[in-house]
Amino acid sequence: MEQKKALVGIKVLDMGRVLSGPLCTAILGDFGADVIKVEMPGTGDDSRANKPYGGYFACFNRNKKSITLDLKQGREQFLKLVSRVDVLVENFRPGVMAKLGFGYDELKKINPGLIYCAISGFGQTGPYSQRACLDPVAQAMAGIMSVTGFPGTRPVRCGASICDVMAAQNAALGILMALQYRSKTGEGQIVDIALVDMGVTAMSSIIQNYLSDGYMNTKMGNGYVAGAPGGSYHAKDGEFILNASADKSFAKLCVLMKREDLLKDIKFSNRKARCENRDELDDIINAWTVTKTIEEHVKTFLELKMVAGPVYNVKQTTEDPQIAVVRGMFPEVEVAGIGKFKITGQPIKLSETPANIYHNPPALGEDNTEVYSLLGYDESEIKAMSDKHII
Amino acid sequence: MEQKKALVGIKVLDMGRVLSGPLCTAILGDFGADVIKVEMPGTGDDSRANKPYGGYFACFNRNKKSITLDLKQGREQFLKLVSRVDVLVENFRPGVMAKLGFGYDELKKINPGLIYCAISGFGQTGPYSQRACLDPVAQAMAGIMSVTGFPGTRPVRCGASICDVMAAQNAALGILMALQYRSKTGEGQIVDIALVDMGVTAMSSIIQNYLSDGYMNTKMGNGYVAGAPGGSYHAKDGEFILNASADKSFAKLCVLMKREDLLKDIKFSNRKARCENRDELDDIINAWTVTKTIEEHVKTFLELKMVAGPVYNVKQTTEDPQIAVVRGMFPEVEVAGIGKFKITGQPIKLSETPANIYHNPPALGEDNTEVYSLLGYDESEIKAMSDKHII
Repeated sequence: MEQKKALVGIKVLDMGRVLSGPLCTAILGDFGADVIKVEMPGTGDDSRANKPYGGYFACFNRNKKSITLDLKQGREQFLKLVSRVDVLVENFRPGVMAKLGFGYDELKKINPGLIYCAISGFGQTGPYSQRACLDPVAQAMAGIMSVTGFPGTRPVRCGASICDVMAAQNAALGILMALQYRSKTGEGQIVDIALVDMGVTAMSSIIQNYLSDGYMNTKMGNGYVAGAPGGSYHAKDGEFILNASADKSFAKLCVLMKREDLLKDIKFSNRKARCENRDELDDIINAWTVTKTIEEHVKTFLELKMVAGPVYNVKQTTEDPQIAVVRGMFPEVEVAGIGKFKITGQPIKLSETPANIYHNPPALGEDNTEVYSLLGYDESEIKAMSDKHII
Repeated sequence: MEQKKALVGIKVLDMGRVLSGPLCTAILGDFGADVIKVEMPGTGDDSRANKPYGGYFACFNRNKKSITLDLKQGREQFLKLVSRVDVLVENFRPGVMAKLGFGYDELKKINPGLIYCAISGFGQTGPYSQRACLDPVAQAMAGIMSVTGFPGTRPVRCGASICDVMAAQNAALGILMALQYRSKTGEGQIVDIALVDMGVTAMSSIIQNYLSDGYMNTKMGNGYVAGAPGGSYHAKDGEFILNASADKSFAKLCVLMKREDLLKDIKFSNRKARCENRDELDDIINAWTVTKTIEEHVKTFLELKMVAGPVYNVKQTTEDPQIAVVRGMFPEVEVAGIGKFKITGQPIKLSETPANIYHNPPALGEDNTEVYSLLGYDESEIKAMSDKHII
């Protein structure tokens, strides 16, 4: 029996490059949308150049077909493609598509139901729209760096490209909302996603402290402003996360440490006092935690229904049985000429229409014949287009 | 003219608490879904207790109605609610709803089209499903802390609660996918979202280095493994982001610094050499950047089409004209008894059906009379339910 697909029948044109655009369409492809990736003849998506194994391209381009098309020479072909799809996704700098004659207002004329999704650093309009932007700039301007790191240290970026990834996911969400609207009205629209806005949303609760209460968070290391003790603590073999800020949890911790005296100490007897004396308290806790392993501590605290977990490196994350096996976060793909390897897959788990790998990451132009045939070009025309480097 | 809404007519029951569940339904409400938040009589959502101004609750509970209901006493009322909605969102620990007799299998019997979205730390099944989890644990186990911070320093958490926020956004995306499927089949399903999976997706490109190429990233501060110079640099008045890792960009930087000699220096003349000698190169750059202000540097680099931007604190983020004005990231809400203040709003910008504030953050049980009347209870019955503390 063929697997049921949530997005069956939805046709998507991926004009994206590198991360946010390609990941957005990969998400749609994971749930059964028919995604065609349009790439520059000869070179393709910049990320194809990432060596040695092309894992980066593979990860963000699962579940797509690839065709080549030189947008400057291939106007006719491109418009034929646009007339047949539901969604277009691009992450060029704002204005690039319009300059090619492919702005939304033009494309809308030939496909009024088109959902045009543009991902950029700062959005399609406004004084910053033409600024170059990468994930670190978005994190920096969203204030994320100002609250990341230990007190007194330099601002530091979150090592994961969170604004890029969130942009892809929010673009997909905006597209699904626009599809919902289109199903009632037939009308398409623009989905305008900015990397910096992603960082701002990620900061919602911290920004709220400032907007409503006038409190400006700064770097807190791995602790929380509102509670202590909490953060990462030293075990024999590394660090682990523990939160014992609630009175009940703190009491359990004190019993474990055989330091019930702390519960009566005016410096630690309530949450406010513990916050004020958090460094002294953390020293006491670390002196005890460092005598056992991460595994021992995590097991003990979880049995007591407390919040705890190991600080993993990348290898440990990929080998964790819950993440890798139960959640199936690393499906396998096969790349011609290289072989099989794993990628990071879909975090959205749907019971009836789960994500799947329907199409391996494509070679450049792998699907030219199929797709251009469907557009009405015959074999000799396709060969001629290839000879002229249009495709 | 009334504003067009992408999600008009979609009815959502918010059983969520604190962040991920409530933000998920707030997103749906931003685009016109009809969201009813179900809260415990007397206390309500835990985040209502966040003082002094209740900004936290307000931010994550815009665009909802609030009703109270004691789930243990109010079985009849709850099932009536469920029979009339399209979507239910909860972020209890897995199993809590089933224990109350409200597991998906039960609710499906009275509403086969119901989309049941559950957000948890590790997912609804598997050995970790009952573990307590907060955002820091999810970040730690996804490997984010292992790649955040400067080389040689302790692992550090991203200061923003990114797994919580991404969980809310991916839950909304999963719900929209399930709605898409339901529109063709009438069938509902479960959307199962785990905080730790959010961190794993955020790490996609870094995890990929390990999965396909066997390379394990560690802490790189604000730089990139694959290129140099890049990261945050010291200006007279703080730090700013600059990426000059491409040969062309590096040449522009050298001209600005009047250090064209570096271009011929074997230590810096190509990307690989610059990566190997990145610390020495950063020292040279910092000695020059520290003589001017952030604003001067950013202006200069942007004019040269290079990647640069200021490292903002939270106040600066909220005051940036592109973020605050052009993108409108901080809409105003009004809370009874407190007044008007700003919250962080919607990052998805739809041209025809934009997000809006349709409903201010509700007082606890503010909409009891309206909602329970719609369910068929008359005034005296509603009063009796209230007297018995069922609502």
